[in-house]
Amino acid sequence: MTQWLEEQARVRERRGLVRSPLVRVANDRMVDLASNDYLGLATDARLAEAAREAIAKWGTGATSSRLVAGTTELHVELEHALAQLTGMDAALVFSSGYLANLGVTTALGGPGTLIVADEQCHASLIDGFRLSRSEVLNFRHNSVQDAADKLANRTQPRALIAVESIYSVGGDAAPLSELLALAEGHDAMLLVDEAHSLGVSGSGSKAGWGAIAGTRLAGHPNVIVTATLSKALGSQGGAVLGSLLLREHLVNRARSFVFDTALAPPAAAAALAAIGVITAEPWRAAAVHHNAAALATGLQAARGRPGTAVDRSLGAVQSIPMASAEAALAAARAAHEAGVRVGCFRPPSVPDGVSRLRLTARATLTSADIEQACAALRSILERTS
Amino acid sequence: MTQWLEEQARVRERRGLVRSPLVRVANDRMVDLASNDYLGLATDARLAEAAREAIAKWGTGATSSRLVAGTTELHVELEHALAQLTGMDAALVFSSGYLANLGVTTALGGPGTLIVADEQCHASLIDGFRLSRSEVLNFRHNSVQDAADKLANRTQPRALIAVESIYSVGGDAAPLSELLALAEGHDAMLLVDEAHSLGVSGSGSKAGWGAIAGTRLAGHPNVIVTATLSKALGSQGGAVLGSLLLREHLVNRARSFVFDTALAPPAAAAALAAIGVITAEPWRAAAVHHNAAALATGLQAARGRPGTAVDRSLGAVQSIPMASAEAALAAARAAHEAGVRVGCFRPPSVPDGVSRLRLTARATLTSADIEQACAALRSILERTS
Repeated sequence: MTQWLEEQARVRERRGLVRSPLVRVANDRMVDLASNDYLGLATDARLAEAAREAIAKWGTGATSSRLVAGTTELHVELEHALAQLTGMDAALVFSSGYLANLGVTTALGGPGTLIVADEQCHASLIDGFRLSRSEVLNFRHNSVQDAADKLANRTQPRALIAVESIYSVGGDAAPLSELLALAEGHDAMLLVDEAHSLGVSGSGSKAGWGAIAGTRLAGHPNVIVTATLSKALGSQGGAVLGSLLLREHLVNRARSFVFDTALAPPAAAAALAAIGVITAEPWRAAAVHHNAAALATGLQAARGRPGTAVDRSLGAVQSIPMASAEAALAAARAAHEAGVRVGCFRPPSVPDGVSRLRLTARATLTSADIEQACAALRSILERTS
Repeated sequence: MTQWLEEQARVRERRGLVRSPLVRVANDRMVDLASNDYLGLATDARLAEAAREAIAKWGTGATSSRLVAGTTELHVELEHALAQLTGMDAALVFSSGYLANLGVTTALGGPGTLIVADEQCHASLIDGFRLSRSEVLNFRHNSVQDAADKLANRTQPRALIAVESIYSVGGDAAPLSELLALAEGHDAMLLVDEAHSLGVSGSGSKAGWGAIAGTRLAGHPNVIVTATLSKALGSQGGAVLGSLLLREHLVNRARSFVFDTALAPPAAAAALAAIGVITAEPWRAAAVHHNAAALATGLQAARGRPGTAVDRSLGAVQSIPMASAEAALAAARAAHEAGVRVGCFRPPSVPDGVSRLRLTARATLTSADIEQACAALRSILERTS
């Protein structure tokens, strides 16, 4: 095995695909365009206080799986708040978004279920599909017509259409209402991963409530939502939202729920407090949209390179395709030296194989931050183009 | 899909297999024989203080994946401490033990790897095997001979033997040194899941260091260890331990590492503090062993029923087989009414299909707790036998 590991390491080296985490130090004063802390809540005093109270009341860990002794009043309260925010009937909290996606796909999948999935679905969904032993057909990114074609002649009694409301890497949005119509027409379930949308999408007084709340999808019997508590909600964990019947099914059948220690109390409390902040302060999600537009404008001068057309009204992610994995890495390092942290995505973390920089337009970026970042990035991108 | 969910719910009902979490309230004064908080650290003041400091310094969430911006100095420090405690060269922390097991098995598995696994391996290992697309051969529980037979005529260039040092449900120990000899003879890796052993196994000044530390397995090139931070360590998260080369491979290839938000800082800090307590206070692990013996003795009167032979010197788990799923549930409910929380394990959570009560001999149980629990359980078990 050691010899094989050495070989694999050499291949990575040759292809310019070696990854190793840069270690973050506290209060490093970098401009953060890399993290998924969209609303700036990971360092919010109210989340911190809620987590501290939960530690005092419940302890640092949940002590066992949800079904043994890991379900506290706090978990129940968080589930109610999540259901209310998204407009779904019920929620079930997992210890990570990854495990939530594995849980729902494996509990609903199997030989009797055809899964029809957008080709850009997240790794956690893909792993769940594989694990479920369902037949899986991928449709072209955001093509409702291709999804319809894939559903047309199914032999399985059940079907699940899987998409993300905002795609993680490209930052673009799924055509949810057409997809719901498709699901209704085929007696299929529509699974919507709100990982990059909850806390971010929505407008007016519902800015930040996500892409489902207040739409026809909310509480619809053909809709299932998954969410993460570790991005806009500034904490850790994930959730599946749907009917009470679905929740009961997952409690009994989702292996990543049944056989996993429950979410730690401070994480549950922080996520619960984040929901309170989101509903009280819609300006945060609005600031994300504003900053996304400012970033896009500020990077205009760097255009002329192949770009992705992204609907800025919903998401926070700006994606800058690069010529190669090496070019992406060099640009990300140069940005880091200029005091700007950006995401650097290379194969296999890019659904379309295109290496890129990924920028998140976080709510708490100042105009000065955005100006500094755009100036640095324009100069770096001009040098590398 | 809804109709199918309803059908499934009816089947569960008919078979007496419906689960629903009992909601725990704070300070409920129950005698806890159900949780995996083996050392009583989930409510320890030092873990609480460490978690609070981490919240102040780093925030309530890690904000992104480890490779983007989620690796803090705290994660690195925790990895060093875990490697030092277990005697392994390097550690990689995941956001749950479930994801650690998925990560290592999928990154090492595949068509070129034969997996030979104890039939009682945990769900997270089994899911990892499936996901890896390896050929998997199960061997009879703890039978080194059967494992050898399964390895004998392999056609794959690589092989992985997977076991747990202490089995979760039965509480018995794996024959680790014979298994290592087997791995050496077959140029195979031995993967040891220390979930129920780290913090519990070991003796003398190394009580609590786990089943690997101080043995020939520690740092051995054929050995990989996985651990959870959510049981004896009173927190949340998991880890894989092995060579630096293995760690680098996982950083690049383990999808449940690459595509998952990093462990939340308060959880990392609490686990780090727990390691300090474990090394400073070997009396805790010793108390687990003492309490396990006291529980076994106190339940003598309830014997005569089919029992499992369990080596008390290493583990903390006492397993009481019951006649049926309904009987197990009724006994667990009666114990709850008597102020004693016990684990109730029914299919599919039991590797051998036998429903049972599962008792954990936690370090912080008092003699009075154990007497109360034994008296209540004796009376319940006599009524149901």
